Amino acid sequence: MKPCTPCSIAVAAAALFATASATAQDTSSVQVYGIFDIGVEVNDTGAPGSSNLWLVNSGNMSATRLGFRGTEDLGGGLKALFNIEMGVALDTGGTISLPDSPGAIWGRRAVVGLQGAFGSLYLGRDYTPGFWTVLQTDRFRYGLPGTVSTPSQISATRANNGIFYNTPTMGGLTGRFAVALGSEGTTAAKDQGRLYSGSVDFRSGNLFLSAAVQRRRDLSPGSTTETTAMKEAGFGGEYKAGSLTFSAGYWGADPVTATTDAVTKSDAYWLGASLEVGVGVVSAQVAQTKLEVIGRGEGKATNFGLSYSHALSKRTNVYAAVGGVSNDEMTRLALNTGSQRVGGAVFGADPRAAIVGVRHTF
Amino acid sequence: MKPCTPCSIAVAAAALFATASATAQDTSSVQVYGIFDIGVEVNDTGAPGSSNLWLVNSGNMSATRLGFRGTEDLGGGLKALFNIEMGVALDTGGTISLPDSPGAIWGRRAVVGLQGAFGSLYLGRDYTPGFWTVLQTDRFRYGLPGTVSTPSQISATRANNGIFYNTPTMGGLTGRFAVALGSEGTTAAKDQGRLYSGSVDFRSGNLFLSAAVQRRRDLSPGSTTETTAMKEAGFGGEYKAGSLTFSAGYWGADPVTATTDAVTKSDAYWLGASLEVGVGVVSAQVAQTKLEVIGRGEGKATNFGLSYSHALSKRTNVYAAVGGVSNDEMTRLALNTGSQRVGGAVFGADPRAAIVGVRHTF
Amino acid sequence: MKPCTPCSIAVAAAALFATASATAQDTSSVQVYGIFDIGVEVNDTGAPGSSNLWLVNSGNMSATRLGFRGTEDLGGGLKALFNIEMGVALDTGGTISLPDSPGAIWGRRAVVGLQGAFGSLYLGRDYTPGFWTVLQTDRFRYGLPGTVSTPSQISATRANNGIFYNTPTMGGLTGRFAVALGSEGTTAAKDQGRLYSGSVDFRSGNLFLSAAVQRRRDLSPGSTTETTAMKEAGFGGEYKAGSLTFSAGYWGADPVTATTDAVTKSDAYWLGASLEVGVGVVSAQVAQTKLEVIGRGEGKATNFGLSYSHALSKRTNVYAAVGGVSNDEMTRLALNTGSQRVGGAVFGADPRAAIVGVRHTF
Repeated sequence: MKPCTPCSIAVAAAALFATASATAQDTSSVQVYGIFDIGVEVNDTGAPGSSNLWLVNSGNMSATRLGFRGTEDLGGGLKALFNIEMGVALDTGGTISLPDSPGAIWGRRAVVGLQGAFGSLYLGRDYTPGFWTVLQTDRFRYGLPGTVSTPSQISATRANNGIFYNTPTMGGLTGRFAVALGSEGTTAAKDQGRLYSGSVDFRSGNLFLSAAVQRRRDLSPGSTTETTAMKEAGFGGEYKAGSLTFSAGYWGADPVTATTDAVTKSDAYWLGASLEVGVGVVSAQVAQTKLEVIGRGEGKATNFGLSYSHALSKRTNVYAAVGGVSNDEMTRLALNTGSQRVGGAVFGADPRAAIVGVRHTF
Repeated sequence: MKPCTPCSIAVAAAALFATASATAQDTSSVQVYGIFDIGVEVNDTGAPGSSNLWLVNSGNMSATRLGFRGTEDLGGGLKALFNIEMGVALDTGGTISLPDSPGAIWGRRAVVGLQGAFGSLYLGRDYTPGFWTVLQTDRFRYGLPGTVSTPSQISATRANNGIFYNTPTMGGLTGRFAVALGSEGTTAAKDQGRLYSGSVDFRSGNLFLSAAVQRRRDLSPGSTTETTAMKEAGFGGEYKAGSLTFSAGYWGADPVTATTDAVTKSDAYWLGASLEVGVGVVSAQVAQTKLEVIGRGEGKATNFGLSYSHALSKRTNVYAAVGGVSNDEMTRLALNTGSQRVGGAVFGADPRAAIVGVRHTF
Repeated sequence: MKPCTPCSIAVAAAALFATASATAQDTSSVQVYGIFDIGVEVNDTGAPGSSNLWLVNSGNMSATRLGFRGTEDLGGGLKALFNIEMGVALDTGGTISLPDSPGAIWGRRAVVGLQGAFGSLYLGRDYTPGFWTVLQTDRFRYGLPGTVSTPSQISATRANNGIFYNTPTMGGLTGRFAVALGSEGTTAAKDQGRLYSGSVDFRSGNLFLSAAVQRRRDLSPGSTTETTAMKEAGFGGEYKAGSLTFSAGYWGADPVTATTDAVTKSDAYWLGASLEVGVGVVSAQVAQTKLEVIGRGEGKATNFGLSYSHALSKRTNVYAAVGGVSNDEMTRLALNTGSQRVGGAVFGADPRAAIVGVRHTF
């Protein structure tokens, strides 16, 4: 193996001017992939005077995305890996950036790392351990109106400037750990966004269990220099019995806020099931979220969803789903229908939505 | 075939952490494609005191673009299809978003759909039927100074949040239909941008004919809640006789506006011809547009263009073109040179441009 | 060969609706490539009261990038080539646009061109000849704290709206020439950004020499319509003796500015060396920059860096580096650590940084 020096960047730079070289093409392992999901939705925010709205929505069952990923075998069980992924809005041709990394078109994931007997280590922007615990116990996998994405009130689903370590799987156990270095001194509060997160997954036969805990330094209310720890944690599981799969979970969060009408504490429980019927799957899930709302007190919101997915192939399916949220007078939980939200503005209003669509994976 | 459940998104998500799997690569059919077009242009807006301006311009004969598309055979004649396409400005390294979907980098096209014996059905952002009628009767195919892109005054060339259905071709006839659900309640006028459009193409031997009609709900002048129907329609054809091809077309439009100096009605006619000369093609086209201008009255603008394209291969050609607009005192039609416009600010000014460039398709 | 007419765009357009056609895939030569580089950095701006800051930084040894390039053999020694390249921020999922083309996501490079016995001719946004002279004499190749990117004070590294011609190599000599047409009349100063640049490279055995001169019309201080020539020029070389490589260079610049505390003239010299040690390379470089600062006088800044790079394969390496700048009371040169800068705000402060990271090329 020839040495790869700081100077080898010159070779790379020079290659820009070379035509696509045979060598580079031979060893390149980059894969272009994506999920394109779009459908027609009718919804109603349930607010006084609201009426049905018909929409073409992108990213219902899965977020529409385009990504590039690849791997290189370094020998001795070691691999280099990379992945960047962009959220795409098929309804407008736009891109979707996420609130915790505004304007970042590769904000779904942007990492490079190494994998070996020691596990895997990624640097960049990645999913948090808590994200994986909720995802894997959400019967709707962060899609369609039944998802617990919003009902769980999970806050730290991804983190910038992070170091992400996953253990190898031993005795069915896998650990995930993340440390994110926060806003990197670009704000007055040096540790803003600093995150510590860890989780453990257990898999044995048809049983899966997961638990996670997360801490993130968010700006203290009224301050631009001091931070307070946002705390969240949860657990859940999944059990497969023939064509039936059950799942259940819990997530609790302590957001850092002092704003009137904002949520200062939440506890969410959910229970879901799905049944395979030929090449189709029927899924249902209900989630109950207790919310402490500043200036109002404690309330309760119930989210429910029912879906049918029909496989046209391994990579393409059509789906139909209905769902809604029942808010009491203290809450205004929005209905998450995938990449969109319905309602969330008026306390006590009950949003509803129905969607039919198609999803293609490539 | 295994069922594809809401839960299969978990598999997809998990795959993010897997290295580019052999299976995924085997079945992936995504194609990266594009057109890169750049040249040197000299132009003059024709306004009092204007002089020649030398430019390097991207997207002259064809808009410069990068796209991803793919297909999956679902069996039984059914196919899944997808396509996203980005406009690229080679002169600056920027992206080009279109006025009807501001900031959308995939604004050239973003769809997923199904194709079968029934025809094809796409959802997302796509070309309107009217776009196709004008494109196929424009001897310059929306490129170079001779194009009728601007002279035709066609307004709805693409639509967001749309459902696009193309019939199969029967007896030479193909129908295209589009319904776009508009701005999806994100504006005060619920139906803003709602579009209905239909067209029919007829092809028999060397003869091609096409006609289209379009309606779109645009904001009524002075209102943010009420809309008025923008109406446009047209027709045209093309006939090939040996190395000669003739084309002609008409497009009429009723824009919704009450702004002084804006166009409130237009009628455009065009006539074009091209002649194959060895591996080259000479093309010429003239278009006459009658315009009703608010506060000024009716005027007439004549657009003309002449081009020569020389094939270096099936995928690469060089080209040279000249063109201009003759405006009378009532009009200020801009000269469209591809992705750029010359003039359009001063009534009665006559913009001119000449371009040489290269276009590469991959 | 069939003629490629203006009308062939229709074929291209129609292909959008076709499924990825076998023909297109057969002839397509587009290559997706990139460099993903990320690491952990600790730095200190050296300003009074500053302290260590820990960061996850993208693009240390090489700028993190994603690109598309391709070539087509046109026969007779002629080739068509294209390349667009995006800067990616792995730490946030964002894109990196460059100051001289704000917001342009393909701002690293965006060209299409022809190559043949005559040399190569590109149009679009590309690197300047001066960029190549500095790059090839910079032992750190524009990466890690030892780079002369900032110390050299080179200003015109890329140019928009450009025509770039490279001669064929004759007798070890290669010439590069660039003319950029500037801001294309989009600003009041018609010739703003107009650039003329040329360089010559000489390579013979283990010896490499390069020299370049550049002129760019920048806005005259206090004016929005008049421009003044920014002048810069330099030279340098590299010599390889077994496992040792030496390099040295000079760059002088006359920026156009009248702002207090801004640099009005600079002269930079550098000397670097690297030693191959097994699959690793140790590199060191020191650069001294004399700066004339408006309102302060002449000062001197010394930049130094030391790095070790260890190859895991031809495409993947890990690295460690330290570096800093010693500013006198007249200067505030920032420490360039790759895609980031440390310090630069406070005169006389001495920024320092240490980085460990991983770089993967695909």
